[in-house]
Amino acid sequence: MPTAKRRRPPAPERVSKKTYEARVNQLREELVRLQVELKEQPFKILLIVAGVAGAGRGDLLNALGGWLDPRGVETFNFDGPTDEERERPFLWRFWRSLPTRGKIGIYAGSWYTQTLNEEARSKKDLAALDHELERIRHFEKALSDNDTLILKVWLNLDKDSQRARLKHLESDERTAWRVTEEDWRHHRIYDRLERTALHILKSTHRPNAPWIVIDAADERARNLAVADLLLQRFGEHRQKLAQLARQRAPAKADPAPKPLRAYGRRRLLGLPLDQQLSAAAYEEKRDKWLGRLNAAARSAHEAGRAIVFVFEGWDAAGKGGAIRRLTSAIDVRDYRVYPVAKPNDEEKSHHYLWRFWKHVPRDGKIAIFDRSWYGRVLVERIEGFCRPDEWQRAFGEINDFERQLVEHGQIVVKFWLHISREEQLARFRSREEISFKQHKINEEDWRNRRRWDAYETAVGDMLALTDTDYAPWHLIPANDKRYARLQVLRSACRAIRAALGEKE
Amino acid sequence: MPTAKRRRPPAPERVSKKTYEARVNQLREELVRLQVELKEQPFKILLIVAGVAGAGRGDLLNALGGWLDPRGVETFNFDGPTDEERERPFLWRFWRSLPTRGKIGIYAGSWYTQTLNEEARSKKDLAALDHELERIRHFEKALSDNDTLILKVWLNLDKDSQRARLKHLESDERTAWRVTEEDWRHHRIYDRLERTALHILKSTHRPNAPWIVIDAADERARNLAVADLLLQRFGEHRQKLAQLARQRAPAKADPAPKPLRAYGRRRLLGLPLDQQLSAAAYEEKRDKWLGRLNAAARSAHEAGRAIVFVFEGWDAAGKGGAIRRLTSAIDVRDYRVYPVAKPNDEEKSHHYLWRFWKHVPRDGKIAIFDRSWYGRVLVERIEGFCRPDEWQRAFGEINDFERQLVEHGQIVVKFWLHISREEQLARFRSREEISFKQHKINEEDWRNRRRWDAYETAVGDMLALTDTDYAPWHLIPANDKRYARLQVLRSACRAIRAALGEKE
Repeated sequence: MPTAKRRRPPAPERVSKKTYEARVNQLREELVRLQVELKEQPFKILLIVAGVAGAGRGDLLNALGGWLDPRGVETFNFDGPTDEERERPFLWRFWRSLPTRGKIGIYAGSWYTQTLNEEARSKKDLAALDHELERIRHFEKALSDNDTLILKVWLNLDKDSQRARLKHLESDERTAWRVTEEDWRHHRIYDRLERTALHILKSTHRPNAPWIVIDAADERARNLAVADLLLQRFGEHRQKLAQLARQRAPAKADPAPKPLRAYGRRRLLGLPLDQQLSAAAYEEKRDKWLGRLNAAARSAHEAGRAIVFVFEGWDAAGKGGAIRRLTSAIDVRDYRVYPVAKPNDEEKSHHYLWRFWKHVPRDGKIAIFDRSWYGRVLVERIEGFCRPDEWQRAFGEINDFERQLVEHGQIVVKFWLHISREEQLARFRSREEISFKQHKINEEDWRNRRRWDAYETAVGDMLALTDTDYAPWHLIPANDKRYARLQVLRSACRAIRAALGEKE
Repeated sequence: MPTAKRRRPPAPERVSKKTYEARVNQLREELVRLQVELKEQPFKILLIVAGVAGAGRGDLLNALGGWLDPRGVETFNFDGPTDEERERPFLWRFWRSLPTRGKIGIYAGSWYTQTLNEEARSKKDLAALDHELERIRHFEKALSDNDTLILKVWLNLDKDSQRARLKHLESDERTAWRVTEEDWRHHRIYDRLERTALHILKSTHRPNAPWIVIDAADERARNLAVADLLLQRFGEHRQKLAQLARQRAPAKADPAPKPLRAYGRRRLLGLPLDQQLSAAAYEEKRDKWLGRLNAAARSAHEAGRAIVFVFEGWDAAGKGGAIRRLTSAIDVRDYRVYPVAKPNDEEKSHHYLWRFWKHVPRDGKIAIFDRSWYGRVLVERIEGFCRPDEWQRAFGEINDFERQLVEHGQIVVKFWLHISREEQLARFRSREEISFKQHKINEEDWRNRRRWDAYETAVGDMLALTDTDYAPWHLIPANDKRYARLQVLRSACRAIRAALGEKE
């Protein structure tokens, strides 16, 4: 099959058994050295192996498995999704199984398998396919931006070679079982499948996640080609990253905000903070909205729709209290609250979104994030825990993440709890005075407070760049706790009912 | 329903709304303080809530959910198992969802749910039930030995009160949907269910995991009773642990080995280490056994039987090499190798078996552990990473763990690769000399080597106390690498075929 780059494959190479064995001995040593070096590197390698029926994917993987040190390799197959996987967005199963930094993940099945097995028969199919491919491109981009080395190998056989290979396998009783009825069906529609595959390869062939077409007519040449590819690209990637690290200037100050971002800050600062609610008015309205929220949450549950609540806001803005009021309306068996603190060792060895993907709820369940992935563009940005290019990229990655949740049917409700600088100071002081609340205030809170202006800019950017129609921000004026809590209940309730297509 | 302890419940208590509300305000504060304190404690709390139909489990959980800070609580329901759960031993789903230290796990459904819903009609049922209850006792003992506070609440209603409650719920359209056909069926067979439940409660009522029967006739009294229980037992448990910590003598030297343990050491030292194999003989036999192992592994896969390989042995005994030969015979899509190093933050916050439970393979898959849970009775014992009572208890816990794997149908194959002290020294030196192998030797290896004698005793104990018929140890003389690798292949192959009931 022709690649996006090279339309005519060269005549298939033949490798003698002797040449092969000599080369394999060398290769083993080189591959294990690669693995030793990879352990110390700040990245992982993903090797995706796909190709036409009979091209010997299994044989290739077993050869690689024999050469590599199995302790640093994870091989994934991905048969049909389990029910836990089906009840989450398509990419969830791939996110959750990513290997940690310093390891190699080899994908016998991957995010392409399902797509490649479907034939695009109609224009509608093609549109759905393109949508899926876009999602895959985003996924691979997020990983490669995070320094992951992604190699995608397409094992190719022309139609005649495929027939010969299948016949050959069938003629030997030790291998006959490997040829399935589906393989022959695929052989019969070779041309149609080739067209779809070519489309998929072209659409997902990117500089940072290229497809490499390898002629599979000669098994030994095929195996060597993939091993050589691994060695060569590892070396290049390591060099590229080292060079990048040298070139990278130290974290720069925030570039001047663009108009859109200035709009977010204005929206934040324009929020009226003087609303108040008497205790009596609050209690009456609270009970009404708790009842409504309870009904809305039950409707969502029955409809199999998951809900993701995100609570962000200034320190001491009242996130905890708002969450408690919210959860008091929901069946305790349906929700889970995730307080988000610093990432642990394992989480640090992954893309920053990995630990949130892990907690994406199943259909009909509710996840409540007390702080969230927005930490990337707030605390991590301001404290310099990530580079400017990283947090700048994060806006798009976060939008993409939330879009996947919504496309799967989840309801995403995001709150920013806003208080004034003066109100925060008053609350900090009161926390320090009440012995029972002292655990809620520490040096970090005071440090964050000193960077109020920087946070204000960051929050403004966040509001401007991640306020999407599918996952809009709800800005909650929170100087008055009662008012804030009620607003959270109302907004939550309305957002759920709107998503379910119910009227107020 | 009567408890094991108190056969006649007192007359149901009634709590007025006013008393309730006053007490609840207090309770909330006390419970949140409990949670703040629990965060710093070296244990977690598991609260299991079970009871007769109509006793208001859901209402109670929602009340607790509203009083507690949801950030420190995880509530579990456990509907029918997912397919990922069904393909593992019964307790896997409970192990994997345990909350971390410092948190409260509330179980609306638990490891009792399935058991309690089945009626024991025959003697055979009763025998199966008792087996299951034993497994549960072991599970709870492992957790409570690890300082977990386990509280099991049984919400009770007598038959008349149950009928009244179900009728009452049905009479209000807001709650009518909560009464199911099954509830009424349970009501009709109240006496039979009571007998089974009483049996279950009695069999699993242990000092460290007691059942507390709470009369559920009055909803408010019921809620207060559970909250009070939580507060009271938390205080007692904390005090008990603090006292224990004061009383505990510093880690003592290993007590004199008992006869059984001495037998293990003799078995180790009696192993002949002078076998050798020429390269030619090795290659011929290797290919034969690789072929057989491949066939055996495929049979196991087809039979849906998982295999768990455990590799233990002296440093430099050749575990890595043996694993590579073994994996070269298996389809790379079917196995995963887990190199076991120091536990990470999250793992440290759990029972030491937790991280291994996580990796228990699905039906038909293969997990290969390069070092394993036996670290508890080897390195952790010798380096003092755990207390003597902890590693002494571990033998039984490990046997229990492996028995569960085997009972689920998994095949457990354990290797100890044995080399002499002199051979180890030679291998260490050669590793230091060959630049390519220097990463394989470090100060820790030398330190372990200096404790050879202590390890010898520990290995002897391990061999004596964990060599069960369902998961026996295969001792591999490994001074000669070729001989050792071949022995591993042979033993693996034979163990699998024996487990499958195949003849050699």
